Amino acid sequence: MNAPGLFVVLEGSEGSGKSTLLHPLAARMREAGTDPVVVREPGGTRAAEIARHAVLDPGHTVGPVSELFFFLAARADVVARVIRPALSEGRVVVSDRYTLSTEAYQMAGRGLPAELVFPALRAATGGLAPDLTLILDIPREIGLQRQVAAGKRMDRLDQESAAFHNRVIDFYGSVRGEGVHHLDGCLPPDRLLQAAWDIIVERDAERFGARSG
Amino acid sequence: MNAPGLFVVLEGSEGSGKSTLLHPLAARMREAGTDPVVVREPGGTRAAEIARHAVLDPGHTVGPVSELFFFLAARADVVARVIRPALSEGRVVVSDRYTLSTEAYQMAGRGLPAELVFPALRAATGGLAPDLTLILDIPREIGLQRQVAAGKRMDRLDQESAAFHNRVIDFYGSVRGEGVHHLDGCLPPDRLLQAAWDIIVERDAERFGARSG
Repeated sequence: MNAPGLFVVLEGSEGSGKSTLLHPLAARMREAGTDPVVVREPGGTRAAEIARHAVLDPGHTVGPVSELFFFLAARADVVARVIRPALSEGRVVVSDRYTLSTEAYQMAGRGLPAELVFPALRAATGGLAPDLTLILDIPREIGLQRQVAAGKRMDRLDQESAAFHNRVIDFYGSVRGEGVHHLDGCLPPDRLLQAAWDIIVERDAERFGARSG
Repeated sequence: MNAPGLFVVLEGSEGSGKSTLLHPLAARMREAGTDPVVVREPGGTRAAEIARHAVLDPGHTVGPVSELFFFLAARADVVARVIRPALSEGRVVVSDRYTLSTEAYQMAGRGLPAELVFPALRAATGGLAPDLTLILDIPREIGLQRQVAAGKRMDRLDQESAAFHNRVIDFYGSVRGEGVHHLDGCLPPDRLLQAAWDIIVERDAERFGARSG
């Protein structure tokens, strides 16, 4: 019989440092003797990559409802094909974004109604919830500065999308719940990694506690 | 000010003759002086073609929930980008499949729950309903014979999908409602065209009645 899996999700607004944290965190897990499955949304399966292409195609911006359904089509496929099988084998899954991103961007940001988004999210995930959610909080100005410094295209970040991103950030700041932890996205990368690591070790000392932490 | 548009949808199971009817029907409209916008689902916009590719990709069969969301992502885009603009210009739109197909295939066929499908459908269409729905009824055996005769790949039509298609056919047979008409899909093409045309002329005599019918 397999050991139970562990499902860890990183969440946060643009420039909050999720991607910067993701790979050192996975490396730390490997050093501790556990090879995690790393998932980056949207993407990770052929269907999900297709959906990602449809949503991010700069020549053909889809509307908010179409965008929601493309993301959920991708998520349903990744959950069924990657996340659930890995967890059922007792593996650790670390996902860059999951259902909170849909709540943050499509519901809080774009204003899609909860009575549409929640049943659709439940259907896409079959109700699979993370064991741990690490939310990286960061003020809008700093997230924006990081994106500029990283050379990301800023042309869509006009006045309207500034308000959009503020709604996203406010949403993330408001999330509370079982297994939800807020981290200061302004921390230097090594301190952020350690803060994340401490939470993970506390949650699963059996897997991670013996060799490090 | 524009004349009101007219939204005509053709529905029916595989081999019911929708596609065979579609183009002669559009031609008949043109002869009557009206150039219709012809929509074929899923498809018709770049995002919808991408979704179609994701769903129909034989190397990567998506699950029923992912399939639903890909179809709805496509439909939301086609409604926003093609159907609504055409109707608001007073044009006639003829669509090969629309929301009844989702009810037939994803809900009756795949067994997805109504409390998921209906809100998602409403969101995808913004509540836009057809003025006329022509359902082509056909027994399963005849639809199957036609597909074989047309050289379609039959390998997915195993025992399980025979039951699936029977549920789809039973659903279509049960649909009643305003603007819904059942046509006998076993009619020869010219008689089917005339039966469809009679219904359309009766519905919009002002547009189609003067020159033909």
